Amino acid sequence: MSETVTPARRGRDSRRARAQSIAAKYPYIRRRLKPVELLSSEAIEVIEANAETILEEVGIEFRRDAESLRLWREAGADVDGERVRIPRGMARKLLATAPEEFTVFARNPERNVRFGGDATVFSPVGGPPFVHDIERGRRYGTLEDLTAFIKLAHMAPAIHFSGGCMCEPMEIPPNKRHLDIQYAFFRYSDQGCEATPETGGHAEDAVALAQSLFGASFLETHPVVLGNINSNSPLVFDGRMLRALRAFASHNQGTIVVPAVLAGAMGPVTPAGCLAEILAETLAGMALTQLVRPGAPVILGSFVGAISMRTGAPTFGTPEATQMIFATAQLARRLKVPCRSGGSLCASKVADAQAAYESAHTLLPTLLAGVNLVTHAAGWLEGGWSRATRSSSWTQTSAR
Amino acid sequence: MSETVTPARRGRDSRRARAQSIAAKYPYIRRRLKPVELLSSEAIEVIEANAETILEEVGIEFRRDAESLRLWREAGADVDGERVRIPRGMARKLLATAPEEFTVFARNPERNVRFGGDATVFSPVGGPPFVHDIERGRRYGTLEDLTAFIKLAHMAPAIHFSGGCMCEPMEIPPNKRHLDIQYAFFRYSDQGCEATPETGGHAEDAVALAQSLFGASFLETHPVVLGNINSNSPLVFDGRMLRALRAFASHNQGTIVVPAVLAGAMGPVTPAGCLAEILAETLAGMALTQLVRPGAPVILGSFVGAISMRTGAPTFGTPEATQMIFATAQLARRLKVPCRSGGSLCASKVADAQAAYESAHTLLPTLLAGVNLVTHAAGWLEGGWSRATRSSSWTQTSAR
Repeated sequence: MSETVTPARRGRDSRRARAQSIAAKYPYIRRRLKPVELLSSEAIEVIEANAETILEEVGIEFRRDAESLRLWREAGADVDGERVRIPRGMARKLLATAPEEFTVFARNPERNVRFGGDATVFSPVGGPPFVHDIERGRRYGTLEDLTAFIKLAHMAPAIHFSGGCMCEPMEIPPNKRHLDIQYAFFRYSDQGCEATPETGGHAEDAVALAQSLFGASFLETHPVVLGNINSNSPLVFDGRMLRALRAFASHNQGTIVVPAVLAGAMGPVTPAGCLAEILAETLAGMALTQLVRPGAPVILGSFVGAISMRTGAPTFGTPEATQMIFATAQLARRLKVPCRSGGSLCASKVADAQAAYESAHTLLPTLLAGVNLVTHAAGWLEGGWSRATRSSSWTQTSAR
Repeated sequence: MSETVTPARRGRDSRRARAQSIAAKYPYIRRRLKPVELLSSEAIEVIEANAETILEEVGIEFRRDAESLRLWREAGADVDGERVRIPRGMARKLLATAPEEFTVFARNPERNVRFGGDATVFSPVGGPPFVHDIERGRRYGTLEDLTAFIKLAHMAPAIHFSGGCMCEPMEIPPNKRHLDIQYAFFRYSDQGCEATPETGGHAEDAVALAQSLFGASFLETHPVVLGNINSNSPLVFDGRMLRALRAFASHNQGTIVVPAVLAGAMGPVTPAGCLAEILAETLAGMALTQLVRPGAPVILGSFVGAISMRTGAPTFGTPEATQMIFATAQLARRLKVPCRSGGSLCASKVADAQAAYESAHTLLPTLLAGVNLVTHAAGWLEGGWSRATRSSSWTQTSAR
C-alpha cells in the first residue's frame, strides 16, 4: 500500500472517521430521568387481572402451527382446536426465564446496543413502500433508495440501530426480496438491525445470513438480530408469525412481540380495554418464546393508535395513544422485560403541522415513559398504512 | 316580560347555556399525575445556592422607585444607590408569608380559578400587536379583534382564564388603551383575567376598574386580577414595573414575577446558569410583594427560550427551554408558591410544522412539569417578539 493519499481517499477516510466517532459517542441513550408512571399501581393491577381473565376465559388463537399448539399442550394450557386458554398466572410464570436486559451484537462491537433498564435505542421507520424526495415526489421505493436509507441510518448520530426496512425495494420479486433487504442491512451498515420476517422461511433465512456473517456458534450465545412478530389482533397469532417467532427463539435470537392495535378497530375503544388486550397477546406470545427456548431474549411491544370514530381513519399522537405508551412501558417493567413502543408517529400525508404535532406528541411521551426500543423514531407519513402493500400480518389484521 | 321567545332569543339562550355548562364543567385542570421532577434535589440545591450568591454578592437593581429601595433598606438589605444586595436567605424568609395556593375570583363564581397545588389554569396569548385571518392576512389588531378574542377565550372549553391581551387594539391611543383593554375583559367575559400593566398608573387603573366592578372592600380580601410583572433581565427591575407591583400587592391583588430571559441574551447560555438568574430575580421580586403587604398572593414565573448562537434569533421549544420549564416548577414547589411557565411557544412566523413541533414540545412539558398558570396556552406566532411594538419592559430588555 502506498503512503500517498489521494484527496478522494482523504475525503472517504475523514467521512469514515467521523462516522466512527459518532458511533463511539452515542451507541444508545442512557436515560437519567426516572420513567414517568402515568398509572397508579391499582390501575395497573386491574389491567393485569383483566389480561389474565382474557387468557384464561377467552384464550388466544394460535393458527396453522401445530408445533405451537403442542408446546402449549405440554405446558398444561387448555388447547381447544387452535384456541389456547392459558390458566391464570401461567404465561407470567413462563416469562420468568426471559432476560430483563440483553445486548444485540453488531458487526462493529462499538455499536452493540442494550435493551432494557435505562437504555433507549432509536431505530428508523420500518415498512413504507413509498419514498418521497423533492425532485421526484412520492414514488415506490427501490433497493437503491433502501441502500441510501441504510447509509443515512448508519451515519445519523441519533439512530442507534437499523430498522426493519426503511422502504420496500418494490422492483425486487417478493419471493427473494427479504434476502436482498437483509443482505443490504448487513453490507451497508455495521450497526445492529431488526428483521421483519413475513414467514417462518424469512426468519430462517435471516438467521442463516446472520450465521454466515457471525458464525453459527456465535449466534447460539449472542443475539445479533431482533425479529418483529406481530399478533393479528384481536387475540390471534397466525402460522407465519408463529414459525418466525420459533425460528428466532430457537436460535437464541431476539423477538419483539407486538400487537398492532388501533383502538376501536382491532381492540376496545378505551385505553384500559386496549391495554388488557395488548397485555394478553404479548404475555401469550412472549411465553411461547420461553416454551421454545427458555432464556430466549424477548421484548414486549405495543404499536398503538386509535380509529376515528367518525371516519374509521387511523389516528396517531392522540391522548389515548399517549396513555397507552406510558402504560405499556409500566407493564413491561413489572414483567421485567424490555419494552418497544411509541416512535414518531402521525396520520398526516405530508410533512406538515399535523405531522409535526402528532410526532412530537408520540416521541416525547415515548422517552418520558422509559421505552427501551423506539422503532419509527425518525418519523413516518401516511400513518404507516403504506405497509399494507406488503403481504404482512398487518395487512391480514386490517382485512379481517 | 313576555313569555314569547323569539328564535334569535332562543339561539342566544342556547349559546349562553352551552357556555355556562362548559364553564361549570372545566373551571380549570386538576392534575392527577405527579409532577415530573427533572432535576435531582442535589442539582436544585446548587441552583438555589447560586441564586442566593447572586442576590448577596451581585445584587439586583431596583431602578427609579425610591419606595422599593426604602422597603429593602428597612428590611435590612444592603442598598447601594439603586443596587440592592440581599443577604443570603433573606428573600426566601420574607417569602414565607406568601400563600402556597390562592383563588382569583371572577364575575361568575363558577369560573373562579385556583393557583397552586395540583391546579393548572390555561390562559391565551398576551401581547401580539398583529392578528392573522384567512381573509385579511396579517394586520394590526383592533379593539374589535380583541373583543372577538375575549369572547372566544370565554367560550373555549380549555381556556380557564383570560390573557393579558390577545392582541393590541392599535387604533386606540396608548395613553388610554389600557382602560379600553381592561374594560373589554370585564365586559365581554365573566371569567377572571390577567392584567399586563406597563406603568404603575396602569396597575392603579386596573385596580380601580376592578373596585368599581367588585367593590373596594371585596378586593381587600379577594384577588380578582393578576398583574404580570416582568423583570428587566439580567438582574434589574424598572420603576414602572415596581410601581405596578406595589399597586397590585398593596391592594392584595395577585402578581406574577416573570423574568423574560432568552438564554444567551439576557441570561447565561446554560440552563443551570439561567435558572440561577431566574430564581434570583423572582426571589427578589416576590420578596418585595411581601414587604409591601405580607400575605399578598404572588406567582413565580419564568418565560424561557434561547438565542440562536449563530444568528441571535430567539428560539422556543428547544431542549434547553424544556429543561428550564421543568426546573422552574420544581423551584416554585420548593418555595411553596404557585408557578407560571411554558405555554404553546414557537419561533415560527406561520402555523406550520415548525410551529406545531415547537408548541407541542413546550406545552406537553409544561403540563408534565406541574406548572400552575400557563399563559400563551392557546399558541402564538413570531416568537412573541411582536410584543416589542408595545412600550413594555420586554422592549426595554431587548434594547439594553
